[in-house]
Amino acid sequence: MRLLVEPKFDLYVDVITDEAKKCKDVIQLQWGELASVPPDRVKNFFVEAFERRLTRYTLPHGDLELRRVLRKKLADKNGIRADVDNIIVTIGGTAAINFVFRILAGDGGYIVIQDPSWFGYPGIARYVGARIYRIPENEYSYESLENAKKEIEKKGGTLRIIVMNYPSNPTGHVFDVSTMKEVVEFARDHDVLILSDEAYEDYVFAGKHISIASIGGLDNIVSVFTISKTYSFTGLRIGYAVGPKEIIDAMALAQVHTYISPPSINQYVARRLLEENIAKEIVKENIKLLKENLRIVKEFTEKNGWEISEPKGGIYAFIRLPGIDSVEFSLKLLRYEKVAVAPGADFGDCWKDWLRITIAKSKSELLEGLRRIEKQYNLTTCTKPRG
Amino acid sequence: MRLLVEPKFDLYVDVITDEAKKCKDVIQLQWGELASVPPDRVKNFFVEAFERRLTRYTLPHGDLELRRVLRKKLADKNGIRADVDNIIVTIGGTAAINFVFRILAGDGGYIVIQDPSWFGYPGIARYVGARIYRIPENEYSYESLENAKKEIEKKGGTLRIIVMNYPSNPTGHVFDVSTMKEVVEFARDHDVLILSDEAYEDYVFAGKHISIASIGGLDNIVSVFTISKTYSFTGLRIGYAVGPKEIIDAMALAQVHTYISPPSINQYVARRLLEENIAKEIVKENIKLLKENLRIVKEFTEKNGWEISEPKGGIYAFIRLPGIDSVEFSLKLLRYEKVAVAPGADFGDCWKDWLRITIAKSKSELLEGLRRIEKQYNLTTCTKPRG
Repeated sequence: MRLLVEPKFDLYVDVITDEAKKCKDVIQLQWGELASVPPDRVKNFFVEAFERRLTRYTLPHGDLELRRVLRKKLADKNGIRADVDNIIVTIGGTAAINFVFRILAGDGGYIVIQDPSWFGYPGIARYVGARIYRIPENEYSYESLENAKKEIEKKGGTLRIIVMNYPSNPTGHVFDVSTMKEVVEFARDHDVLILSDEAYEDYVFAGKHISIASIGGLDNIVSVFTISKTYSFTGLRIGYAVGPKEIIDAMALAQVHTYISPPSINQYVARRLLEENIAKEIVKENIKLLKENLRIVKEFTEKNGWEISEPKGGIYAFIRLPGIDSVEFSLKLLRYEKVAVAPGADFGDCWKDWLRITIAKSKSELLEGLRRIEKQYNLTTCTKPRG
Repeated sequence: MRLLVEPKFDLYVDVITDEAKKCKDVIQLQWGELASVPPDRVKNFFVEAFERRLTRYTLPHGDLELRRVLRKKLADKNGIRADVDNIIVTIGGTAAINFVFRILAGDGGYIVIQDPSWFGYPGIARYVGARIYRIPENEYSYESLENAKKEIEKKGGTLRIIVMNYPSNPTGHVFDVSTMKEVVEFARDHDVLILSDEAYEDYVFAGKHISIASIGGLDNIVSVFTISKTYSFTGLRIGYAVGPKEIIDAMALAQVHTYISPPSINQYVARRLLEENIAKEIVKENIKLLKENLRIVKEFTEKNGWEISEPKGGIYAFIRLPGIDSVEFSLKLLRYEKVAVAPGADFGDCWKDWLRITIAKSKSELLEGLRRIEKQYNLTTCTKPRG
């Protein structure tokens, strides 16, 4: 039988992760899950949900009470004014991104993404039948988008979506307000949707996270958020999106055709996490750790003359080790030094001598990981054979 | 912006449900959720999961320990011998169906479904870019499939998947072993996949549920099961599929591109439900109720001269009220008698004077619902104006 989806993972970071499973005591810097865990009393929320017998399907848009709480959160924290009808609850932010790509660009339409960019976007785009066009993330502007549009049209394509991910994965890039205004203007002028992926909204190192929809309104913007990152709870699989009612309704249909609705109990737990402001306890500690870890990484990169794309937020550091081939280096690093990292090649063609490492680990683990990276780098650049 | 997914629900049963929300005290026979609830101690499973800090992403194929338990369940209960690599955990059975449709027929390929058939299939097929061909469910055979294949090829299409849903929604049809053998032979001869949807495996009224993969093996068969129906726990959103490794691997990739992985805690709860054999407590009671309710429905249909497609399992009765238009009748029934049913028109073009009602309600509620259907029917067929 001919399969329309290749039955193998096509990211180098997956190869690294698979290999890492075969070794013991690997320092895993390749994924970005926060080291902290949700506080113990969160288990009571599950019990509450069960005792209320929330054991059935919810509405296709998600539980109404959760959406009411989300409306308040979006207004208070993000400055996004929305009705519950503008909000959908999904299985993590990923499902929301998948649905938007499918609904607006699933016929071969083009999606602009940042370069470098989370490796999930190209995979999701390909899966739903959309195409990708990359713009350097610090070059987003009315003009660069206009040029992208022209380039896309030369190829016979149509620009449908502009993705903005801030703080970004992998670099921690954030967009300034004037760039946001230009993108909003471009999107309005050319009837294009902005997909604002704000998964790391709580991990901004200086100042306050600004949501583009607080500037541009809901008309051309779907903003995606998640419980996963804020609450160190990726396993809960609850995300949400806010946007124009028509698109949110289409996403609800996509959701019904994909998995009916998100799990009921998890939606209740998400509501309680928000109501009890559990984030407050978690985020502050995490930011402190992230900042300290970032300082450690910067010391290392400086000492070694490595480049770093200095993150303004997020949970990663994206660093350049001159002269390496990121895939080859990452494999050797794992083999000889037992450190797993994400090769830059996964983030776009221009990043072949870059590595992404998470800074959401304990200080000691990160420090040891960096020491081993340094060791492997020195051996590699000395071209001394080893093993 | 042009949306590639229409932002509205296109099923009559959704219209009925929306209308039903506006009235008080409606007897809701339109959906099939079992009246029972999971036993109280299931809440402890959630606490256990949390205390074990199962708060992270799981593997793309789903938690390994759950898959080990599923392997045993599939061997013991379904007679399906599989390795853990042949098993994937998904968000309900629906996600598994969506992924199989996408992977094998997402390029406009054809899927044979039963007539009448669960209204989810055409919607999912359309969403992923596949097409539907219907065969009367009691006419599945090597010959009818060969004819279907020829008809599809005449239209320039290719047959990729044969769906078998047993006990079926809406009729409770089950396939006999000789039919299964013919379908398996056809699938092998023509390199077609059988998608065996066994969501209602536990609700068979006479004899034992037989899984087609216990006859045909794994080569051309993906079998889909769910925790939702067996455990009266649709809100848990955990299903699973077993099939050829290559297809299961492609489904894992589809899963990563759609929502990364199913929720971790829910997977643990599913495992505990299976380990503790909670089904035993629930299913027996439910089958007793379903059989008693079926007897009540049959008395009613007999008395009124209505046809019934006698279910051999499942949680529905599919009945024909001669002369009605199912959509018009269902709307009137809701408006005047406050009973919600699923119009036959949702299940295929041939079922316009049929209704699907759930038999998974309390006896008294079902009985009152039937009385009101009878009343409305008598008024409708007398063409006496009303209201």
